Amino acid sequence: MTTPLPKRSSNFSAWYNELVVRADLAENASVRGCMIIKPYGYAIWERLQGFFDKAFKETGHVNAYFPLLIPKSYLSKEADHVEGFAKECAVVTHYRLKMAEDGSGMVVDPAAKLEEELIIRPTSETVIWSTYKNWIQSYRDLPILVNQWCNIVRWEMRTRLFLRTTEFLWQEGHTAHATRAEAEAEALQMLHLYERIIREYMAIPLVKGIKTEHERFAGAETTYTIEALLQDGKALQAGTSHYLGQRFAKAFDVTFTNQDGIRDYAWGTSWGVTTRLMGALIMTHSDDDGLVLPPKIAPIQVVMIPIYKTNTEHDAVVSALSVCQEQLANQGIRVKLDDRDTRKPGYKFAEYEQKGVPIRIALGPNDLKNKTVELARRDTKEKITISLEGLVEQVSYWLEAIQENIYQRALSLQQQHTVCVDDYATFKVLIAGKGGFLLAHWDGTTETEEKIKAETKATIRCIPLDGVEEEGCCIYTGRPSKRRVIFAQAY
Amino acid sequence: MTTPLPKRSSNFSAWYNELVVRADLAENASVRGCMIIKPYGYAIWERLQGFFDKAFKETGHVNAYFPLLIPKSYLSKEADHVEGFAKECAVVTHYRLKMAEDGSGMVVDPAAKLEEELIIRPTSETVIWSTYKNWIQSYRDLPILVNQWCNIVRWEMRTRLFLRTTEFLWQEGHTAHATRAEAEAEALQMLHLYERIIREYMAIPLVKGIKTEHERFAGAETTYTIEALLQDGKALQAGTSHYLGQRFAKAFDVTFTNQDGIRDYAWGTSWGVTTRLMGALIMTHSDDDGLVLPPKIAPIQVVMIPIYKTNTEHDAVVSALSVCQEQLANQGIRVKLDDRDTRKPGYKFAEYEQKGVPIRIALGPNDLKNKTVELARRDTKEKITISLEGLVEQVSYWLEAIQENIYQRALSLQQQHTVCVDDYATFKVLIAGKGGFLLAHWDGTTETEEKIKAETKATIRCIPLDGVEEEGCCIYTGRPSKRRVIFAQAY
Repeated sequence: MTTPLPKRSSNFSAWYNELVVRADLAENASVRGCMIIKPYGYAIWERLQGFFDKAFKETGHVNAYFPLLIPKSYLSKEADHVEGFAKECAVVTHYRLKMAEDGSGMVVDPAAKLEEELIIRPTSETVIWSTYKNWIQSYRDLPILVNQWCNIVRWEMRTRLFLRTTEFLWQEGHTAHATRAEAEAEALQMLHLYERIIREYMAIPLVKGIKTEHERFAGAETTYTIEALLQDGKALQAGTSHYLGQRFAKAFDVTFTNQDGIRDYAWGTSWGVTTRLMGALIMTHSDDDGLVLPPKIAPIQVVMIPIYKTNTEHDAVVSALSVCQEQLANQGIRVKLDDRDTRKPGYKFAEYEQKGVPIRIALGPNDLKNKTVELARRDTKEKITISLEGLVEQVSYWLEAIQENIYQRALSLQQQHTVCVDDYATFKVLIAGKGGFLLAHWDGTTETEEKIKAETKATIRCIPLDGVEEEGCCIYTGRPSKRRVIFAQAY
Repeated sequence: MTTPLPKRSSNFSAWYNELVVRADLAENASVRGCMIIKPYGYAIWERLQGFFDKAFKETGHVNAYFPLLIPKSYLSKEADHVEGFAKECAVVTHYRLKMAEDGSGMVVDPAAKLEEELIIRPTSETVIWSTYKNWIQSYRDLPILVNQWCNIVRWEMRTRLFLRTTEFLWQEGHTAHATRAEAEAEALQMLHLYERIIREYMAIPLVKGIKTEHERFAGAETTYTIEALLQDGKALQAGTSHYLGQRFAKAFDVTFTNQDGIRDYAWGTSWGVTTRLMGALIMTHSDDDGLVLPPKIAPIQVVMIPIYKTNTEHDAVVSALSVCQEQLANQGIRVKLDDRDTRKPGYKFAEYEQKGVPIRIALGPNDLKNKTVELARRDTKEKITISLEGLVEQVSYWLEAIQENIYQRALSLQQQHTVCVDDYATFKVLIAGKGGFLLAHWDGTTETEEKIKAETKATIRCIPLDGVEEEGCCIYTGRPSKRRVIFAQAY
């Protein structure tokens, strides 16, 4: 608690790494690239899960569970898919350990070698479509609107807590439909749903768009994406929704008889958000003093800290705070009274500030005398002393105000850093400087995309859905272009 | 839907296997021993999770997430633990596939061999206690009351849907305490909590007890268990709670400074329930016509089926049912109106019977005329026609009555099959016959326990907590014994 966090302006990356640990959100596990999500971090993830899960169910989706382990041969059935996922996967080759013959410890039992290796799921399209084959015979069996909450393993070389970890948690929706139009509408519906939940609850503004062929999910016809812009000017892909066409249905021979009695392949989508969203949350709102949490997802919305010297003062102050606590809890506000006698108020102030609790309430003997209470806002650092009577009203008002304020702050940052660029020299200066979403013309080729990436580390984040048609020239080749795409360096 | 299920009396095992699939709960995956939990089965699991999770939080526990992959060396740190779990585990040895040099398909890349093999968690004590080492310095950091919902892999040779699968879902609680007494109280608290939730919501009567040394969890000082008795007279371990003493603290060097300034090892517990509970649920209540679900965990409590011939009749009947649906839903009842025109009422009746929906409502043109409605109870098969006005009241009454009735039915079956046995000849006859919980004296040795198991397949399910001291002689050796233990054949 004593040394301050690194400053965002001097070392954004160090600030993030340190903050995640200090705010008790997560820590690195001893297994390379894996993380431990600590209770405080997990409580935020649980709240997020709740909002998404409710929205999925309201749109007719149901949850199910498919196996963690996928036969190696499944991965190969969709050509692009294997290309995209085989390179970074955890491979199970044996099913038993035994004591080494020299007694030195446990070793893999060579007699327990699997006939076919199993892959820990890097995503579940293959195992799910191999199952759908048996579930789908007729148009009456469609649509299938299934979601799964689970863990995923991708063998990443460079990892960072929440942003890129070997194992992460996510939800993956996998739907099958009788028509192309229905599948396309589903993929877009889920994109809009993601954007709405993340904006409303996480207070993160997003740009919706389509990935270029080069950035598309391995096995999709169209990949829709939501992109966030973080405080350091870098982009973060916050979720994707894929229109799969009939590709997985063809790879796993999933056909059905339509209403005209004709056999056709089913049309698919898949869509997911991951614990990566926790990284987006932290990097969007937090400041040099620690985490800043939107009230709607904060596990603790209000923390109460008693100020006292004597035992008599303690009892009077805590008793007054308990009354306040009950009043606030009755309004559905998540409030915690921190009555630990092992820590001083100053320590507690710093701790909850670092943990991003939206509102802090302090009450001491003088407040008791004056029937007042001190309130502090985490986002603006504003402090006010008000009459005890007005507490519930003020807290309710502030919780809404904080949610709105941090969204507006993030939106304005995103807008300030979203600029049209028409020449490559300026593009390079901006990307190397303050970053941001650079709206530029592009000739539509993967070749140009890769050259720009190699020279500037900027990738095309998306072709924005709300973009307008406009005549222009590719910033790199000068070839004609019909619309701008968004370039950025990304996490 | 056409062929009936096998009868419980002629082939209980075939009845179970067939029922799980027909009721749309789960199916076998293509990976050996793994299962797919289908949406209807998963909806039941989700409800169960909700009840447990709420109860955990009410008793001060918080959720967190620890890695799926455990370094091989961790398993070896607690001697009994490695003995218990190393024999049946999935081993990750490589982190990449590559195209075979002859282009024939994907093969494991030998260059991507891990330095130390990783085990997919068969339980998480090792990885969690290795983490607690960093979380615990002082008594102020205790207790730690953490729970985790996750997937587990144990390489089982004989598997059965829900009862024993290579991968399963569970929750595992892992707590650390400053005193032995507190840890012992925690282990017992969780046992009682499990028993209460399973009795109240799943309507399953359980016996609480302590496992013998031979049946104890690998690494525990005491294993508490809850045991169910199924319709075929076999027992099923429904959950366990372990008092770990200081064993994992010592294995992972987890020490803290107590209030007297003295360094001590932390005291631990762990406790879990799994998707196995789904098997207990099915085998306790269901009948030859299919699943019977307790209303409190049924995803659909009431299904409504319209009866009609003409379009006009359809519209009138469905419109009347929609009104009923709203009235029931307003009371918090989970009601589904099945208006599919692709299936006849008879088909729907059989389908929901097989799926165990507690109450079925049917309404046709004659009912409309008479302002009546037909209700059928799944548990007793009772059918009544009542005035539409009284619907909500009758349904609410029946939902409670069904919950109570199936619990009493199961309790009375358990009581009928719980018998005191004082000679080994009778013991063998009973075990080979109708089974049940056999209360018998035992001399307390593992040797006798193993001999009885070898001769009768009966194991000691537990030393019941509510057992009384009584003088007796071991049924096998005749040696003196102070209390009866429960023997049964078990799943």
